[in-house]
Amino acid sequence: MFNQLGVIGCGLMGGSFALAMKKAGLVRRVVGYSKSPSTTETARRMGVIDIAAESALLAVSGSDIVLVAVPVAATESTFKAIRHLVRNDVLLMDVGSTKSDVVDAARRALGKQFGSFVPAHPIAGKESAGVQHADAALYQGRQVILTPLEQTRAEMVQKATDVWSALGCQVLKMAPHHHDEAFAAVSHLPHLLAFAFFNAVARQPSGRDFLSLAGPGFRDFTRIAASDPAVWRDVLLANKSEVLAQSQRFKEALDELEALIKRGDGAALDALIRQAAEGRSQWSLSTPTGSSTSAKNK
Amino acid sequence: MFNQLGVIGCGLMGGSFALAMKKAGLVRRVVGYSKSPSTTETARRMGVIDIAAESALLAVSGSDIVLVAVPVAATESTFKAIRHLVRNDVLLMDVGSTKSDVVDAARRALGKQFGSFVPAHPIAGKESAGVQHADAALYQGRQVILTPLEQTRAEMVQKATDVWSALGCQVLKMAPHHHDEAFAAVSHLPHLLAFAFFNAVARQPSGRDFLSLAGPGFRDFTRIAASDPAVWRDVLLANKSEVLAQSQRFKEALDELEALIKRGDGAALDALIRQAAEGRSQWSLSTPTGSSTSAKNK
Repeated sequence: MFNQLGVIGCGLMGGSFALAMKKAGLVRRVVGYSKSPSTTETARRMGVIDIAAESALLAVSGSDIVLVAVPVAATESTFKAIRHLVRNDVLLMDVGSTKSDVVDAARRALGKQFGSFVPAHPIAGKESAGVQHADAALYQGRQVILTPLEQTRAEMVQKATDVWSALGCQVLKMAPHHHDEAFAAVSHLPHLLAFAFFNAVARQPSGRDFLSLAGPGFRDFTRIAASDPAVWRDVLLANKSEVLAQSQRFKEALDELEALIKRGDGAALDALIRQAAEGRSQWSLSTPTGSSTSAKNK
Repeated sequence: MFNQLGVIGCGLMGGSFALAMKKAGLVRRVVGYSKSPSTTETARRMGVIDIAAESALLAVSGSDIVLVAVPVAATESTFKAIRHLVRNDVLLMDVGSTKSDVVDAARRALGKQFGSFVPAHPIAGKESAGVQHADAALYQGRQVILTPLEQTRAEMVQKATDVWSALGCQVLKMAPHHHDEAFAAVSHLPHLLAFAFFNAVARQPSGRDFLSLAGPGFRDFTRIAASDPAVWRDVLLANKSEVLAQSQRFKEALDELEALIKRGDGAALDALIRQAAEGRSQWSLSTPTGSSTSAKNK
């Protein structure tokens, strides 16, 4: 049980964390700060936070758990703004979709308080950004990746594991660069492709007509194209080299399929599509079971 | 009300049509045929069809409505097999995802019975193929595109419109080549991209690990990669030139985003992502309202 949660960035991710912590009875009071005063005010009116702070630093004051939920490019300046009040007993976490850059920023900005910071990436979200879509159940049943470093205090890693587990998450740990490589493949690249695809369709002369004919397959394929632009701009830039490497692999796979279509090679085309279809049919979303990583660690 | 529906190809699409027609009380009896006898037998056991026919021709015998629901490349041979029993009062339709090639095949195979054929493409489906996933509600609330030609008998177009409307569909009419251009953009290309993307991720050395970390965004983006390989092999080959043209547009949009990422141009990247995100947020799946095309035509 924590006494006070400080949320910096009261958007979808930060707001949902606040609601989930309250619902789970894990925190007595939530103090929130957002760059935009109207967001902070909305969060307070909605009961997502109890007290609106006038600065990031004031949201940390008196908090024993702090969540930084800002676009990844704003992480370093946020850490700099709060470092003087990050005491040894404060659990500090982020929710960023990239981890190497966040870890580097934390190392630069937090100095000797770096050991209190547990980098976290909950694999959850929805296409509708903003505190008005905050949802106490957003993290329920999802994976959370923690990427602690050697200098991260073991006690803080344990606290972070316990918090996310209590919110119904499966907690995994991995190195920041491994995280960034994996998520370039399964998350950042699909977002990039969805943005490119939607723009390519919408921009053509008959784009409007075409869009009016699109069905459920299109709906699901493009859902992530509606994601928060600021968040994804930062993610794609922060994880540039891994994203471009994954895009290269993708373009090779696309070229291979196109070559088969061009020369009308039905058998080879069938084989490649079947590979994808069978692979995708066998895949399913990981959800916590009775034996989550954190449970095993206990 | 029809006396007998003949379904050729008792898979997801054909089976769902049979169930929907029965549920709507639009047909007294369903006779079905599939290339694989075990599929026909499963359809009969499940009550999707009432009588298993031993050939496509026998499924047409005595039917006043016939649905051909086979992979598009099998359309011509199917039409040839049944043409002798397609009388003037039989409404003949398909459900293929491409229309120009199907119309050409029908013209060649059906001869003077071409006027009975109403080319149809219901914008519905799911990633799980096969009669075991047939669903009376599959077409409910979906669009159906009819691409009648000058030679198509007006009476048949009206019957087709009435049938799909009665199943809860919004019926639109357009020229075959316009249909193929539009669906290359909003359906065929996304399938191609989803196949390429899934293979690109799964094939790399750490692909298995990466897949175990994928979240809800990945799940939705790749759902269509699990579609029926034979169906999509045929669609991509049949609509080759439109699909390749759309893929070219897509690759240009992707290259543009990649160039901005490479040179770290956050403002321009933000603008393009925002374009996609706003476009996608404004888009929604068309569903029939009180004023569907067919209602307006009445």
